[in-house]
Amino acid sequence: MRRIRITLAYDGTEFHGWQIQPALPTVQGELQRILREIEGRPVLVDGSGRTDAGVHALAQVAAFSLENPIPADNLRRAMNRLLPHAIRVLAVEERPPDFHPRFDARAKTYEYRIFRGEVCPPFERRYVHHYPYPLDLARMTCVAPLFEGEHDFTAFAAADERDREGGSKVRTIFSSRLEPAGERLLYRVRGSGFLKHMVRNLVGTILEAGKGNLTPEGVCALLQPGAAVKAGPTAPACGLFLVSVEYL
Amino acid sequence: MRRIRITLAYDGTEFHGWQIQPALPTVQGELQRILREIEGRPVLVDGSGRTDAGVHALAQVAAFSLENPIPADNLRRAMNRLLPHAIRVLAVEERPPDFHPRFDARAKTYEYRIFRGEVCPPFERRYVHHYPYPLDLARMTCVAPLFEGEHDFTAFAAADERDREGGSKVRTIFSSRLEPAGERLLYRVRGSGFLKHMVRNLVGTILEAGKGNLTPEGVCALLQPGAAVKAGPTAPACGLFLVSVEYL
Repeated sequence: MRRIRITLAYDGTEFHGWQIQPALPTVQGELQRILREIEGRPVLVDGSGRTDAGVHALAQVAAFSLENPIPADNLRRAMNRLLPHAIRVLAVEERPPDFHPRFDARAKTYEYRIFRGEVCPPFERRYVHHYPYPLDLARMTCVAPLFEGEHDFTAFAAADERDREGGSKVRTIFSSRLEPAGERLLYRVRGSGFLKHMVRNLVGTILEAGKGNLTPEGVCALLQPGAAVKAGPTAPACGLFLVSVEYL
Repeated sequence: MRRIRITLAYDGTEFHGWQIQPALPTVQGELQRILREIEGRPVLVDGSGRTDAGVHALAQVAAFSLENPIPADNLRRAMNRLLPHAIRVLAVEERPPDFHPRFDARAKTYEYRIFRGEVCPPFERRYVHHYPYPLDLARMTCVAPLFEGEHDFTAFAAADERDREGGSKVRTIFSSRLEPAGERLLYRVRGSGFLKHMVRNLVGTILEAGKGNLTPEGVCALLQPGAAVKAGPTAPACGLFLVSVEYL
């Protein structure tokens, strides 16, 4: 069996997230559907991690095992011919049989896009969080790097993950920066791994600080082990892009 | 009665063009629907011209008459609250009672976007014509300015308009340029006015030249009065943007 690694971009607008679900369009579901056509039997696709409904990817990584001897470049073309245009395979590579896109990942980078202008251009409406209200940008820019380092991110996990016993909530964030760019705010975060909803909760927390509802000290308190408080609200999915997944 | 001029952007993907049609979503139809709510009686919206189904606008101009004394800026906000997000009102201004967005227009600019890379990014798929095949760019760049000047554009009109008696098919093109930009080709054309399908037929003709099916001489022949030949095929609507409409 060959082990194939693919890099793919998708517009999350039309999918109920990454993970396969009965009777709902998902990215994993679409990939498994067309690979079954190519391979002639069911193929399991492993992702580097799940993305939520509505979240986009510039370069998600996934892998699957295949008997079919089709050359990598032909496989890429065949997949793009069969997939909906909202999902595009950017690269296909052979990997050792034990390659796993989730367990082998060393770092991931996400970007969150906020549009601050009063009128959101119709062409961007699916790809930004439109927030046309006043924000304290200086405070937000200060708060974003507070997440850098190794912290217990329990306060930033989705409720169901937060309440679940077991599984460390400690993650390492290598960089966390907010950059104003004209009418846009771009938040980029690179880390060893992320809990469910974590990036959107980091953004929600930075936005709370920008609205004046949270001080830098309040943000630091959220990172203390056993913090009883919950982070800011989960920012909308449409502004979030998985930018890249890094491997050794 | 006040005469109101609006500038609006729209994502044409979800509309059956500008012109109102029973039971189909159109830009004019959406505007008239929400203005009826604001004014309490039917309001006729005049556009600077029709755009085809699927064609986008960065700054279309339209006008209507209103009794409602609502200040211009509040009207803009009210319209954006009621309109679908695919249509945004960028500006609202008072104009003299006889202002007409079509008859008073002095020039219009369109842009056509072609994506040449093999894999079209999912986020751009609604806003470009994806053409990943070989093209003679040098010839295309030479051919584009041949349309500049005053010409009879009968060969570039839609079939129904071409066959209709009466109405001059002479138009003046002030500039017509093709610019390669990385994996993209941007065609910009500014003219006194355009026939139905004309910009898409100009692009289809430039593409024919790029494919080697048409020489510069062949293109010039299409501009001769009484040219029996038909221009290149109509390029897809999704790559076309109405960029601006100019008034005195």
